[in-house]
Amino acid sequence: MTTTQTDQTFMEAALAQAQKSYDEGGLPIGSVLVSAAGEIVAQGHNRRVQDGDPTAHAEVVCIRNAGRRRDWPELTLYSTLSPCVMCTGTSLLFRIPRVVIGENENFMGAEKLFTNEGVELVNLQHAGCIALMKKFIEQKPDLWNEDIGL
Amino acid sequence: MTTTQTDQTFMEAALAQAQKSYDEGGLPIGSVLVSAAGEIVAQGHNRRVQDGDPTAHAEVVCIRNAGRRRDWPELTLYSTLSPCVMCTGTSLLFRIPRVVIGENENFMGAEKLFTNEGVELVNLQHAGCIALMKKFIEQKPDLWNEDIGL
Repeated sequence: MTTTQTDQTFMEAALAQAQKSYDEGGLPIGSVLVSAAGEIVAQGHNRRVQDGDPTAHAEVVCIRNAGRRRDWPELTLYSTLSPCVMCTGTSLLFRIPRVVIGENENFMGAEKLFTNEGVELVNLQHAGCIALMKKFIEQKPDLWNEDIGL
Repeated sequence: MTTTQTDQTFMEAALAQAQKSYDEGGLPIGSVLVSAAGEIVAQGHNRRVQDGDPTAHAEVVCIRNAGRRRDWPELTLYSTLSPCVMCTGTSLLFRIPRVVIGENENFMGAEKLFTNEGVELVNLQHAGCIALMKKFIEQKPDLWNEDIGL
């Protein structure tokens, strides 16, 4: 597989997490962490609704689920949506060098912070990620605003 | 009380959280969130060791404990230590307008991100915060490095 095909495959795994959260009534944002060997080491989705936890964005949950480790600089973080400033900061703290996002049409996160720190940021403009997020924002705008601090 | 005396009082509460974590074998960093009315609405301390959660920095735990709410722009965040980029991003996401820190001698966080966004950042240079953190870093340097992504 080319790198792009691999990225597409892992984004599908992140999107499956997003769909799972949507089906639970939560925010449809998913994330996976992948090792240099191409193995998913952790996954997660937004859990604000499910757990009542405002910090439970998909990327934070995924990194939380990865547990205590020292191989962060070898991992790639996938997220269905451009990461907000909290999730960007979390990824930067652990020096994750590569971040692949599904889209930034529905929300533009703190992408400049990534590029300022030399993180490789790839936007797949994934139609499935865009459609699911757009549907949710139209259906539950107040919940969406709550999740981005508005 | 003057503002400074109030800040000192709430920093003592954050330091009590830090001491609690130290006594449990964890990282001695504590945080409290205070309302405009001067009430502590949430508190927390680092829980990396206690929960095996790499995202469980004091400020994130405190904000997590505050739960789902919309009054973030009226709160003040207290932390015994200058917040790292994850905790800074978390505070910025929720538009917390004022952050009071115990010190930045043992660790300089992402303070520029706060000031870039117009957040009021106050450093108390609190002797108790400095001493407890310094003691821990000397005693457990590897655990400290793990917590800051090294």
